[in-house]
Amino acid sequence: MRLAVYRKATFNAAHRLHNPTWSDEKNQKVFGLCNNPNFHGHNYQLELKVVGEVDPETGYVIDLKIVSDLIKELITDRFDHRNLNLDVKEFQHLNPTVENIAIVIYDLLRERFDPKYELQVRLYETPRNFVDYPA
Amino acid sequence: MRLAVYRKATFNAAHRLHNPTWSDEKNQKVFGLCNNPNFHGHNYQLELKVVGEVDPETGYVIDLKIVSDLIKELITDRFDHRNLNLDVKEFQHLNPTVENIAIVIYDLLRERFDPKYELQVRLYETPRNFVDYPA
Amino acid sequence: MRLAVYRKATFNAAHRLHNPTWSDEKNQKVFGLCNNPNFHGHNYQLELKVVGEVDPETGYVIDLKIVSDLIKELITDRFDHRNLNLDVKEFQHLNPTVENIAIVIYDLLRERFDPKYELQVRLYETPRNFVDYPA
Amino acid sequence: MRLAVYRKATFNAAHRLHNPTWSDEKNQKVFGLCNNPNFHGHNYQLELKVVGEVDPETGYVIDLKIVSDLIKELITDRFDHRNLNLDVKEFQHLNPTVENIAIVIYDLLRERFDPKYELQVRLYETPRNFVDYPA
Amino acid sequence: MRLAVYRKATFNAAHRLHNPTWSDEKNQKVFGLCNNPNFHGHNYQLELKVVGEVDPETGYVIDLKIVSDLIKELITDRFDHRNLNLDVKEFQHLNPTVENIAIVIYDLLRERFDPKYELQVRLYETPRNFVDYPA
Amino acid sequence: MRLAVYRKATFNAAHRLHNPTWSDEKNQKVFGLCNNPNFHGHNYQLELKVVGEVDPETGYVIDLKIVSDLIKELITDRFDHRNLNLDVKEFQHLNPTVENIAIVIYDLLRERFDPKYELQVRLYETPRNFVDYPA
Repeated sequence: MRLAVYRKATFNAAHRLHNPTWSDEKNQKVFGLCNNPNFHGHNYQLELKVVGEVDPETGYVIDLKIVSDLIKELITDRFDHRNLNLDVKEFQHLNPTVENIAIVIYDLLRERFDPKYELQVRLYETPRNFVDYPA
Repeated sequence: MRLAVYRKATFNAAHRLHNPTWSDEKNQKVFGLCNNPNFHGHNYQLELKVVGEVDPETGYVIDLKIVSDLIKELITDRFDHRNLNLDVKEFQHLNPTVENIAIVIYDLLRERFDPKYELQVRLYETPRNFVDYPA
Repeated sequence: MRLAVYRKATFNAAHRLHNPTWSDEKNQKVFGLCNNPNFHGHNYQLELKVVGEVDPETGYVIDLKIVSDLIKELITDRFDHRNLNLDVKEFQHLNPTVENIAIVIYDLLRERFDPKYELQVRLYETPRNFVDYPA
Repeated sequence: MRLAVYRKATFNAAHRLHNPTWSDEKNQKVFGLCNNPNFHGHNYQLELKVVGEVDPETGYVIDLKIVSDLIKELITDRFDHRNLNLDVKEFQHLNPTVENIAIVIYDLLRERFDPKYELQVRLYETPRNFVDYPA
Repeated sequence: MRLAVYRKATFNAAHRLHNPTWSDEKNQKVFGLCNNPNFHGHNYQLELKVVGEVDPETGYVIDLKIVSDLIKELITDRFDHRNLNLDVKEFQHLNPTVENIAIVIYDLLRERFDPKYELQVRLYETPRNFVDYPA
Repeated sequence: MRLAVYRKATFNAAHRLHNPTWSDEKNQKVFGLCNNPNFHGHNYQLELKVVGEVDPETGYVIDLKIVSDLIKELITDRFDHRNLNLDVKEFQHLNPTVENIAIVIYDLLRERFDPKYELQVRLYETPRNFVDYPA
């Protein structure tokens, strides 16, 4: 049977929800306060789930040093203390909802992990609002 | 791939575990302190999971305002600061174990959400005792 | 210098806020949902602080077994899975607000602890509402 | 003896640490990533402590509705989903460190609370970094 | 539809990661600080998930007293305040990584639960590192 | 008015409670399971409180980089993944109760902080047992 290991990381970022193909009125109506043109921000908490077999030599599914190095290189070094809309190229043309941020994180990590591992991203925007991708 | 979004809510309620078809002795034996005829209570924490596709226009699976309005109308406005056994009609003939409360919450929400969304209820009776429905 | 040690305990109880010298209208106006005649309830979390000198022989301020036995005897055995208004004699003529519950707990514990220890009670009614006594 | 009651609130805001009397190099050296000109953000958690006597009629130190209304009017309605540097007048000429934000919050609340109450602000910038004012 | 109930327990234990078929250098290289020959330790938190049907007579999936008695007998009475490598026979020839501890716990519990229940073990080594078995 | 800033850190260590001037029977009687000769362990969480004035130039009480560097050098580099009794010289002749560990941490930090800062150590041995020094 396979086993899942989890690793947490955090990044503190500014963002704004906005669809550039809509009018200001529609953006305001749909996104409310989240549409503030001067941005607001969150302490995002990332929880990466990695599913695989236990290696009988180490007793590990994966060395968590590898996991944390990849999270640092691909996610926190690029997202932490940044403005997601202005500073992170993946959101130049993508609305940084917590859903879309989770999908971007998954895609960035997925292409660098061995395909033998199944991945899932849980991303908290606040302690009360969070998403899982894939579900 | 589908994505899950979560929304939390709380309600503070009194309840008592009791099976009216049993003797007092059997109720006492099976339910112990939870059978106290004068009731006890809990801070229940509800975590609703909604699974669906991301809407490319909004970047949302669902507008969480819709989710929180439904939770308020169907659950917290009816359960919060209530006695579940005496004040909530769903438990007039149903023992309000955390299992049964979770099933009632799921059924109430399920009939008002678009069938394209998959739902799951996690309900905490205490920080140490909680259930998921469906599993 | 003195050192503080802390011990936590929980009790799950029903209660109702009510002043019997007031009209029903005034009770309803002041206490709102908390005045529900059928009661509601909470998971109360107690955090007892005991301040004293470190005993050089044990390295303890106090044996926590003594602390937890006193909390069990005086508080949780009497309050847990009870209706505070109906089942606990200290609240027969005292409104069980979180403030008054904290004062009752402090007084019960104070008379059984050696006077060389300073005590403080923190009581959570919910994760968001709590009190310290004395301040 | 006096009793302390606590009330929590949250606001999600963008900010940037910057001293306009310093060079860009010095700002970068002292504030590091927090000096990012495009801002970053946090889920701030506010915990207001109100110390006073228990009113024998209500069993309350203060009606928490009054406390939460004042926090909403003075703090969360003005800080939540805002850019502290650009949108909140108190930080037009004051660096929005967590220390300075706590002092501003305390001063705003202090002038609207009855002087018989002692106040203290605890403000979390992240779950690991927080301050108390006054100490 | 089936329902999942959860039960938590904790045990505080010492351990050391070590593969006796490797050289000291390789153990040091792979396991780093976790290879310290004098051991280190953790507050392990166990979260057992039990999946089954709700019994219509009790409203329970399973009496949690049965669950907590089995966890006490098989796990906490044997692991708590122990050195996993030296005091627990299951780890005499098995490296006590959090993965392997979770598998041992699952196997011990699995053979004593009725096969109609599906089980899953979540084990936290720290608040940031945890595993699920089976995944 | 002065302001308090807090910084958290964790270390995972093994320990054993033992008074070498007592018989084995007395050690067993007083310290119970904590006296296990093969050690057990904990995830200790340290919360350092630093009280001072806010510097008007930076808006900081103290640069938290200085605080975290001192905690790393003096505490976590020396205590983390260690056996406190065998590997840390301060506990060669001092029983590593949570009280004594907190006092040692305070003394180590106190001599390296500017006297203008007031310090307090909060140390969690488990989420339920913790101490403050000084009280």
